[in-house]
Amino acid sequence: MSAEAEPGTRTDDDGVAVPEEVLRARAYLMRLAEPPAPRLAHLVALLGPVEAAERIRGGADLGRHVGAEVNARRDVDRVDADLDGVRALGGRLVVPEDADWPVAAMAGFDHPGLDASTDWVTPLGLWVRGPGSLATVGDAGHRSVAVVGSRAATGYGRWVAREWSASLADEGLTVVSGAAFGIDGAAHRGALAVDGRTVAVLACGVERAYPAAHARLLETIAAQGLVVSEYPVGAVPARHRFLVRNRLIAALASGTLVVEAGARSGATRTASAALELGRPVMAVPGPVTSALSVGSHHLARQPGVTLVGSVDDVLADVGPVRDSDTSPVRPSGPLDGLSTPAVRVHGALRGFATATVIALARESGVDPSTVPAALDELAAAGLVILDGERGWCRSG
Amino acid sequence: MSAEAEPGTRTDDDGVAVPEEVLRARAYLMRLAEPPAPRLAHLVALLGPVEAAERIRGGADLGRHVGAEVNARRDVDRVDADLDGVRALGGRLVVPEDADWPVAAMAGFDHPGLDASTDWVTPLGLWVRGPGSLATVGDAGHRSVAVVGSRAATGYGRWVAREWSASLADEGLTVVSGAAFGIDGAAHRGALAVDGRTVAVLACGVERAYPAAHARLLETIAAQGLVVSEYPVGAVPARHRFLVRNRLIAALASGTLVVEAGARSGATRTASAALELGRPVMAVPGPVTSALSVGSHHLARQPGVTLVGSVDDVLADVGPVRDSDTSPVRPSGPLDGLSTPAVRVHGALRGFATATVIALARESGVDPSTVPAALDELAAAGLVILDGERGWCRSG
Repeated sequence: MSAEAEPGTRTDDDGVAVPEEVLRARAYLMRLAEPPAPRLAHLVALLGPVEAAERIRGGADLGRHVGAEVNARRDVDRVDADLDGVRALGGRLVVPEDADWPVAAMAGFDHPGLDASTDWVTPLGLWVRGPGSLATVGDAGHRSVAVVGSRAATGYGRWVAREWSASLADEGLTVVSGAAFGIDGAAHRGALAVDGRTVAVLACGVERAYPAAHARLLETIAAQGLVVSEYPVGAVPARHRFLVRNRLIAALASGTLVVEAGARSGATRTASAALELGRPVMAVPGPVTSALSVGSHHLARQPGVTLVGSVDDVLADVGPVRDSDTSPVRPSGPLDGLSTPAVRVHGALRGFATATVIALARESGVDPSTVPAALDELAAAGLVILDGERGWCRSG
Repeated sequence: MSAEAEPGTRTDDDGVAVPEEVLRARAYLMRLAEPPAPRLAHLVALLGPVEAAERIRGGADLGRHVGAEVNARRDVDRVDADLDGVRALGGRLVVPEDADWPVAAMAGFDHPGLDASTDWVTPLGLWVRGPGSLATVGDAGHRSVAVVGSRAATGYGRWVAREWSASLADEGLTVVSGAAFGIDGAAHRGALAVDGRTVAVLACGVERAYPAAHARLLETIAAQGLVVSEYPVGAVPARHRFLVRNRLIAALASGTLVVEAGARSGATRTASAALELGRPVMAVPGPVTSALSVGSHHLARQPGVTLVGSVDDVLADVGPVRDSDTSPVRPSGPLDGLSTPAVRVHGALRGFATATVIALARESGVDPSTVPAALDELAAAGLVILDGERGWCRSG
């Protein structure tokens, strides 16, 4: 589904129309109840979105449970405003009837089923900005990793989030996070730095820059990746929405990576959600003297959580997948046949007269432990030489 | 068993004599074969040490297997020199017939049994220096932790080894290690700093200072704890002896803690031995950017290995035990009824006008995370006050 679709009847990639009445019904229902709304989800599963919306609008007696979720906003009809609002941003409403619905990612929600007593219900729809494919996020061919952690992350934590996200994105994985300060922002930036896939899941409308200092980051993600929310345009962030949003981050990811987390934090909530969804949870270690690694180490002792000491560990736990789309045919050149890290290290050398392994790792986003092998490969191809004590440089 | 026992017939704590002929037979057998000597152990289990020694001395045909282990040194009789040598150091030979034999620690060796194909055989005896009780090391009432890691440890690794060993020793646990540079030395020093129990297991004779720079450390351990070896006085360290020694470190410990280890290291060998013996193995995390944490992180991903982010985690995994011997009756005073960390922090304040939490942690050997609670306790008892911004000091 491209962002240039005409307003009105939506058409998915296969040319199958999503009926406008379905889209409008779901837009109405999404504004009606604060997510997650398990009883409403139950009703929609039972009647379908169009009939459910009609009955609620018509004032039908829906019983005490559904009533409690929808009565307060039953008469609020902002369907046109909400749909026009997202389309004005070049965005769209993606619904379960849409070919772009992330079926694989949402599969976890089927596990506890639409039990009225649980919050683990599939969203009624997702407001989306950006050119990326939502359907493929976290599916078998496009594994995704939620990279989450503290807003007050240390330099170490931000470094790991950025560098590992770059490496993971470079391996074809999608980096999912929440666009917050600290780990979230570093994760998105790492993925963007290698032109990788990244998805920001918000606790407010997709038009909103929250935090404000991340306005440019969010615009970049909306231009290159995906910005996703359960909340319509205009919705403001609120404490409970962050908690609800965290379950969606976990759902959109094949596995959740906690980089730095205090003893109690949103990141550990996301990790709990991932575990409930049956997805792998991975914890990045740090110095035992760092308060921000306490949560990660605590988490790593829980059943079902693995410790990951390298990008390779993450790939082993989530499953490495190379997205074939990211390997376009190129004209032949001196870099043909080289590994991706070697190509990136070679590119990074452009900025230096001579450079150390550490500097090259930082510049290229290649894991420092991988840089020496990449340099060996480039040296064997005659593309770099070791300039005495001063470091590596391009040969000619 | 005290170090002052007369040469000749040894008498254990219960006044039961260990027959001199048994002691002499085992001293002969220990010099005979390079440990571990599974076939010889099998023969000793079958015939008893006295008859086994007599038959070997007499040149009996013991079959191909035992012969291969003992023929080279069959005629070497250094029993008097070996026993006199260790006694001259105030040491002793502890044998399985002795009440000071570490029955609990050696229990793991019974697990694979005296299978002639395995190296997992109980030592024929242990050469020992020091006033400590060997029998209680690692038994139910005196848990012990092997603290092992790289000789080329970082400052971070040595800090963790020293501080955690101090805290563990202070909790009544025995710290077992190999007296090497790096993690080993820091572990012993941490335990000694709080007058705790520590055991150094050597790959050479118990009289030898190896490494030479640890001569004073080894003398201190021999004076306050235990220095233990399978090798008689005069034996020199050799590569294969370190590997064999590592299994003994694992055996003497209720659990093995790996602080820092490269990808392949002696510490990971000790960890493997602990796992084979069915003992818990714990890995201390560190920055993923540190080459010396790679082995620890790799280890933490293995089945049966737990990650430990704090001393409390270690205690939870090994089992916290307070050795009742370390709580002698004291005359009543202002510190009565205070926790051990509080008493130690109070003592540490002696050296300062005012002190920060970090300084007090370093000085007292109390875990930094525990110091604030200790200060609260002391403040509630009117023993310390917070002097504005400058830190804590004694009140009067």
